[in-house]
Amino acid sequence: MDLVTIGESMLRFMPPVGSTLEAADRFLVVLAGAESNVAIGVQRLGMAAGWVSKLPQNALGRKALNAVRAHGVDVSRVVLAPRGRMGLYFTELPGPPRPVGVVYDRHDSCFSTLEPAEVDWDYVRRASILHLTGITPALGAGCRRVVHRALEVAKGAGLLTTFDVNFRSRLWTAGEAGEVLGRLLPGVDVLIAAAEDVQAVFGLDGAPAEVAAALQSEFKNRVVVLTLGDKGALGREGTEVVHEPAVPGVAVDPIGRGDAFVAGFIFGYIAAGLKRGLAYGSAMASLKQTYVGDVAWCTAEDVGRVAGGDVNALRR
Amino acid sequence: MDLVTIGESMLRFMPPVGSTLEAADRFLVVLAGAESNVAIGVQRLGMAAGWVSKLPQNALGRKALNAVRAHGVDVSRVVLAPRGRMGLYFTELPGPPRPVGVVYDRHDSCFSTLEPAEVDWDYVRRASILHLTGITPALGAGCRRVVHRALEVAKGAGLLTTFDVNFRSRLWTAGEAGEVLGRLLPGVDVLIAAAEDVQAVFGLDGAPAEVAAALQSEFKNRVVVLTLGDKGALGREGTEVVHEPAVPGVAVDPIGRGDAFVAGFIFGYIAAGLKRGLAYGSAMASLKQTYVGDVAWCTAEDVGRVAGGDVNALRR
Amino acid sequence: MDLVTIGESMLRFMPPVGSTLEAADRFLVVLAGAESNVAIGVQRLGMAAGWVSKLPQNALGRKALNAVRAHGVDVSRVVLAPRGRMGLYFTELPGPPRPVGVVYDRHDSCFSTLEPAEVDWDYVRRASILHLTGITPALGAGCRRVVHRALEVAKGAGLLTTFDVNFRSRLWTAGEAGEVLGRLLPGVDVLIAAAEDVQAVFGLDGAPAEVAAALQSEFKNRVVVLTLGDKGALGREGTEVVHEPAVPGVAVDPIGRGDAFVAGFIFGYIAAGLKRGLAYGSAMASLKQTYVGDVAWCTAEDVGRVAGGDVNALRR
Amino acid sequence: MDLVTIGESMLRFMPPVGSTLEAADRFLVVLAGAESNVAIGVQRLGMAAGWVSKLPQNALGRKALNAVRAHGVDVSRVVLAPRGRMGLYFTELPGPPRPVGVVYDRHDSCFSTLEPAEVDWDYVRRASILHLTGITPALGAGCRRVVHRALEVAKGAGLLTTFDVNFRSRLWTAGEAGEVLGRLLPGVDVLIAAAEDVQAVFGLDGAPAEVAAALQSEFKNRVVVLTLGDKGALGREGTEVVHEPAVPGVAVDPIGRGDAFVAGFIFGYIAAGLKRGLAYGSAMASLKQTYVGDVAWCTAEDVGRVAGGDVNALRR
Amino acid sequence: MDLVTIGESMLRFMPPVGSTLEAADRFLVVLAGAESNVAIGVQRLGMAAGWVSKLPQNALGRKALNAVRAHGVDVSRVVLAPRGRMGLYFTELPGPPRPVGVVYDRHDSCFSTLEPAEVDWDYVRRASILHLTGITPALGAGCRRVVHRALEVAKGAGLLTTFDVNFRSRLWTAGEAGEVLGRLLPGVDVLIAAAEDVQAVFGLDGAPAEVAAALQSEFKNRVVVLTLGDKGALGREGTEVVHEPAVPGVAVDPIGRGDAFVAGFIFGYIAAGLKRGLAYGSAMASLKQTYVGDVAWCTAEDVGRVAGGDVNALRR
Amino acid sequence: MDLVTIGESMLRFMPPVGSTLEAADRFLVVLAGAESNVAIGVQRLGMAAGWVSKLPQNALGRKALNAVRAHGVDVSRVVLAPRGRMGLYFTELPGPPRPVGVVYDRHDSCFSTLEPAEVDWDYVRRASILHLTGITPALGAGCRRVVHRALEVAKGAGLLTTFDVNFRSRLWTAGEAGEVLGRLLPGVDVLIAAAEDVQAVFGLDGAPAEVAAALQSEFKNRVVVLTLGDKGALGREGTEVVHEPAVPGVAVDPIGRGDAFVAGFIFGYIAAGLKRGLAYGSAMASLKQTYVGDVAWCTAEDVGRVAGGDVNALRR
Repeated sequence: MDLVTIGESMLRFMPPVGSTLEAADRFLVVLAGAESNVAIGVQRLGMAAGWVSKLPQNALGRKALNAVRAHGVDVSRVVLAPRGRMGLYFTELPGPPRPVGVVYDRHDSCFSTLEPAEVDWDYVRRASILHLTGITPALGAGCRRVVHRALEVAKGAGLLTTFDVNFRSRLWTAGEAGEVLGRLLPGVDVLIAAAEDVQAVFGLDGAPAEVAAALQSEFKNRVVVLTLGDKGALGREGTEVVHEPAVPGVAVDPIGRGDAFVAGFIFGYIAAGLKRGLAYGSAMASLKQTYVGDVAWCTAEDVGRVAGGDVNALRR
Repeated sequence: MDLVTIGESMLRFMPPVGSTLEAADRFLVVLAGAESNVAIGVQRLGMAAGWVSKLPQNALGRKALNAVRAHGVDVSRVVLAPRGRMGLYFTELPGPPRPVGVVYDRHDSCFSTLEPAEVDWDYVRRASILHLTGITPALGAGCRRVVHRALEVAKGAGLLTTFDVNFRSRLWTAGEAGEVLGRLLPGVDVLIAAAEDVQAVFGLDGAPAEVAAALQSEFKNRVVVLTLGDKGALGREGTEVVHEPAVPGVAVDPIGRGDAFVAGFIFGYIAAGLKRGLAYGSAMASLKQTYVGDVAWCTAEDVGRVAGGDVNALRR
Repeated sequence: MDLVTIGESMLRFMPPVGSTLEAADRFLVVLAGAESNVAIGVQRLGMAAGWVSKLPQNALGRKALNAVRAHGVDVSRVVLAPRGRMGLYFTELPGPPRPVGVVYDRHDSCFSTLEPAEVDWDYVRRASILHLTGITPALGAGCRRVVHRALEVAKGAGLLTTFDVNFRSRLWTAGEAGEVLGRLLPGVDVLIAAAEDVQAVFGLDGAPAEVAAALQSEFKNRVVVLTLGDKGALGREGTEVVHEPAVPGVAVDPIGRGDAFVAGFIFGYIAAGLKRGLAYGSAMASLKQTYVGDVAWCTAEDVGRVAGGDVNALRR
Repeated sequence: MDLVTIGESMLRFMPPVGSTLEAADRFLVVLAGAESNVAIGVQRLGMAAGWVSKLPQNALGRKALNAVRAHGVDVSRVVLAPRGRMGLYFTELPGPPRPVGVVYDRHDSCFSTLEPAEVDWDYVRRASILHLTGITPALGAGCRRVVHRALEVAKGAGLLTTFDVNFRSRLWTAGEAGEVLGRLLPGVDVLIAAAEDVQAVFGLDGAPAEVAAALQSEFKNRVVVLTLGDKGALGREGTEVVHEPAVPGVAVDPIGRGDAFVAGFIFGYIAAGLKRGLAYGSAMASLKQTYVGDVAWCTAEDVGRVAGGDVNALRR
Repeated sequence: MDLVTIGESMLRFMPPVGSTLEAADRFLVVLAGAESNVAIGVQRLGMAAGWVSKLPQNALGRKALNAVRAHGVDVSRVVLAPRGRMGLYFTELPGPPRPVGVVYDRHDSCFSTLEPAEVDWDYVRRASILHLTGITPALGAGCRRVVHRALEVAKGAGLLTTFDVNFRSRLWTAGEAGEVLGRLLPGVDVLIAAAEDVQAVFGLDGAPAEVAAALQSEFKNRVVVLTLGDKGALGREGTEVVHEPAVPGVAVDPIGRGDAFVAGFIFGYIAAGLKRGLAYGSAMASLKQTYVGDVAWCTAEDVGRVAGGDVNALRR
Repeated sequence: MDLVTIGESMLRFMPPVGSTLEAADRFLVVLAGAESNVAIGVQRLGMAAGWVSKLPQNALGRKALNAVRAHGVDVSRVVLAPRGRMGLYFTELPGPPRPVGVVYDRHDSCFSTLEPAEVDWDYVRRASILHLTGITPALGAGCRRVVHRALEVAKGAGLLTTFDVNFRSRLWTAGEAGEVLGRLLPGVDVLIAAAEDVQAVFGLDGAPAEVAAALQSEFKNRVVVLTLGDKGALGREGTEVVHEPAVPGVAVDPIGRGDAFVAGFIFGYIAAGLKRGLAYGSAMASLKQTYVGDVAWCTAEDVGRVAGGDVNALRR
């Protein structure tokens, strides 16, 4: 396994274009989940990914499982619980000036009851990379323990650890996030965060290069990557700093863009270092927005056409 | 107001015909809820109905509210709560031999937190009929208190009370139901129940006429109506017993059939007595099955064409 | 041209299966019109048909024109009027016991203003068969003049004339129909009617064979065909009487069944006489019901598979 | 009732995006009507609105009625006529350079037969605001009498009157409109018009502020509001002149934009005066364009997010 | 791996219900393929299945791959070829009397170029069961060699071999099939065939029990299973003969029914012998018909509810 | 007949907007084919067009035939072959940066077997214009012979010949195209080509006016038209050179834009010379992009509104 990740996936419901959650009598249903998005993303680029999660053993749980498995991601360690509910959420994605409409309904989900004892840690140890996000520790005490344990296991087994801060203000306050993440991030190898999340959670403001340096100094990460929205992304590895502009495009569905960036970054970084990582991350993020749903359906060839370079050669 | 009812409504999600909850990427969304089904049913037949409920003040709550209000039902006493979730459920309705597939997700719904203090009891008092079901007391302690209080208020104000047993084994056991309903039903004017629910909850088995008599003797109801599936329905008022056969038809969506029966029964019974009540109940139940969704979209004219008689004259 | 027909076509709107005109937010739109149904039917079986009509020169008129033309029917003599409206109607086609729901909106249609001077009578003269229906004379005085003139022209030019009574009680009373049709039908070569229309319009009741004989005696038709619903059809030519049972099948959309019968009958009768005409008519009628919309999309091969016989050989 | 309005609603049919009225075999059906759009708009913002109209008592009439009622607008004074037809129209809304395609079919609609005797004038008297448009007097002599009478009643009962010129060149000429409106507008409190309609109907051209002054001088209105397309809107109250720029956005369906402006304006003007009225009008107009169909599904919160200010506070 | 199978999958296109391939402007696309149907079927019942195939490395090939993989079937040995086309076919599935409409377009498919050297025979050896069908040898010389080799490998490694005759008259004549299958079937452990195929290919007619005995005598199979359409299925193992009636149901899409039978049979036979095999086969066949598409989406629980018995217990 | 053209049409399959060929379970099906696009285009503008082609006599062939015939194009000379397959292709048309996705599946199509003996050359001779493209000679030896013969026939009968280079790199190399077209183009009256195709096939680069002059000098064409993408089009007739800018617009589906240009050009050129030809070509090309599918559904009125001028007058 090249990459293992642990996290919740949900079902996301959407009305037809131009309609609303209130008005529509039909909803599109798509898979949603930062970690499964990353697993699917790197798998489609040619890596072997495993996704560890917990789902209810009913039609909705199988729906989510199938949606991840269809791309080839290994789901053999997903816990299927005899009871519990899927996390759900409902979005409408209009053009301006209408605000994005969201109704969250993920409380008390099956995944939020996950405990370290339910995870096959040997499976995790056999991977090369462990990817985690700041969403999981916000879901409950058991989930927090899982993240702690996962980082320990990864360090013990010599995995590269990647961590996407992904601050969710609906799940916890910036203060809580700062406290918990402040204990988790030290020693993470690759720290990825939106600049605005860094400001909210850690109070770090200013020029991106300085923020990256401050984070790196604080948490001792090998690499820090800041995503800057339509200003692209900036990475710092050791003392090297690289800025990559955003790839312009037409956004049909922006949700999952950040996860697509992470998948592209990990793939490119592993294969060819920081600069290629940022370039592939930016390409993936822009490509993702052309797809309805969270998943970036693009292939390595598509990324190569956008970012340049022979992606297949890297895959080897 | 001719009829007031109190109860929860949910959103029901369905895959396209021939597909499954697991497979489909689009769901149809319809309003679901025994009490709102009855309110809509009698309103469409020409009565004035009010529906008392509690919904979250978000797009999904408004969706449910609009769906009831569109038919003309008065929703002015629905409590819109700043937080809380909609009850949801997911169904697939295949032909045989595939079993009906259901995933319930109504736990911790906004409605389940309803308390008597949130209900406008004067509004209830001004109605002629109060309709309740055995679902509401199964949803929680507050809901149980609401049902108790509603029956007291109705008796005090001289309303006709109708009660549909509607036993839901996913919400409580037959034992719990029997105990709680045993305290609620005495004195209800019109008791309606599926024969199989009566057997499960009260252990009353045997010929329908005898079961009806036993119930009437036990709970002192003016009228007892037993629905018998494809064997029709049987009513007992005083010592008069009437049996009405089922109206044959093609079932596109059987959910809500029982509520349609209740609506037809109440309308017919009020206008023209037991026999007409059963006839209109059976007609409505069969008509309902031709509609996708819980709601019986038929008009009084449609019911008249199926059951005979000048429905509009009754309406006067 | 093997067959020319003159008549109105409309657009028919339908909600999705299980929904209603009142509830649905999407309608399917199909071509509707007895005469264009017959023209399309015989054209698809291998005859060359021409359809004379009048349509508004706007997107809806072009929609109807394209729908007829797509099958190869010659529409070169359709009058495109700079103003006027399409006739419309709205149907829902539920299973029992829900009655078929219809809202007509064909009043003041563009076609209803058609006058004999707008028809290319030479075009009519060059055909072998003229097909008319009892709908056209019900649409207005000009339309009635067109039908009169058409029958005169056909007789003068030696065409075989076929006439489908098609009584529409929403357009005129049985009395009006009887009076007008009583003047039109004498001398029509092939008279086709539903037995129930014959009863309503001409007061002829009783055994089908006797009714057919009575009509034939009254109007001097070479052939009289009575359609008997699920009892099939009966034809009388000279003194020969043939009964053909209905072809059982599953009805998805019964509208246009009678027109499909007529198309099958004409094709079979011309090629191989009365018995084959009735057999192909029954096959087409049953096949039609499997298609959504008025049009019988079947081919001669399909009819042959249902009715037996080498349809292509007949085509020659 | 905060606001009463009188006017016709129609059903609007639309092909799928990228298709055409001529090509599509499915149409989306939405409610259309300037006055019901305004009633729904102010109701959704928190006012209580009543809509007076006339609809055929069939499935299409009920469809329109439900669509208005679903939002909570009071429809208790809508006349349901046993016969008559719904006004219909068909639109395609392509991107440039393809022109918007429209087929009108509203002639002889049920509403166009409305007479003053059918309106419950006491109901009108009990409202605070009467809103009318220049469409209604164009629909026929009875409708014109209704508008005259409505303005008299409103003045007599002290209602604030608002009037949207809404010149429709398909219904009458600019000359006719100018003559009729010239008799109706004097004394209207709030006159709203598109600058281009003012030029067409009243021949008033030039700088918007001067046009507004000229109108105000001519018709003695308390407030004159000119909408200027993508240049925003200008209001004049007494001698105060306020200009509000348009709110940029993505237009999915521009139809109903003007009505949304009116709803936002009335709500804001009543609550907080001219400037807030123009700001909320512009916000609503831009929001509307993000919804398919005539209706602005936004809430007061959405308007507040676009226009700023605490909308809920105003609502009180 | 419990079961390995080798075969072609195609994409199947279908018009909406009631429409036709000729008329529809939208097609539903589903996975089709006898062997992948069986692999998915047994995997969903709890076995571990692997599917060996060859697909073009393009969006359509990935579509088929994902569709199989989504259910958990191992696709790691599917060959992705840089060029070649997907096999396609188009079906309409009307009710009677309209014949099923099919347009095949599978000629020169990518799979038809498969050669033994492209198959990982060690992977096959590691399974417990090898399932093949009579379709594969009809697809070309290379495919025929693959089937020969597969049976040799399976025998050498001690796998149970199951073979479904599946005669396809569009691919080869009965004579060719008889000759080729006559060389392949001797020594197959479990031979499954439709009785009508046995008659067509081997000329064996008569009572099913005798036909089964004759096949068994001819080909020395441990088990022979004859499917008899709506008369159920008959199995013969050694000298034991068991007949299982068909499970009645509503057929939405009959395609894949035979493959579902095979999957149910293999699962039941392995777990609990001939009788249970036939019972589960019949249940699966009937369940399958309730799903649109080839795949039987049912679970072991669903099969247990239809056929009786504790399916999960068997699974162990 | 004003214009005859000979060429292949295919069916094009498309996923819903925002989805992908890999992900979607429903495809839209549209007619595709450069020559039928041109025939439909000029027919809709008011010319009489005939399309000569070869299609399989099955539901897919009829589908294509109907799609062309629906617009009024004469298809009486299309050869319906008892066997053979439709050419197919699959496209997804995302916004940037996602590349357009295409899977071609037109190999061995029925049309590619067309031979000169199957064409009714007298039919061709009776037309005024013959339109051909560089696609047909790329489809096979027989097709190449058809094109040669068609040009000979046209010259012999005095038709105006128009030829669109339409280089398809998937069908042949630039070298092959250059050699074959180099023999076909001399003497063609109107040569139309994308500037980039001219560079690829003939190696002619530089300022468009010079490239046009070089082509004209090489092939002795009366008119040369170069299309320049968003830079519009340039035409040279004799020594007159006209440049027409592109008409800006929103592109929903760019496929068929070039064919729409050709149709607009031919119509305008015939009616009013080079300048009007380029203007109508540019208008049609831009209009086309607003329609899903290859066909430009616009009318002469639509083109007139975009390009100016009284199109109907020209039509006379």
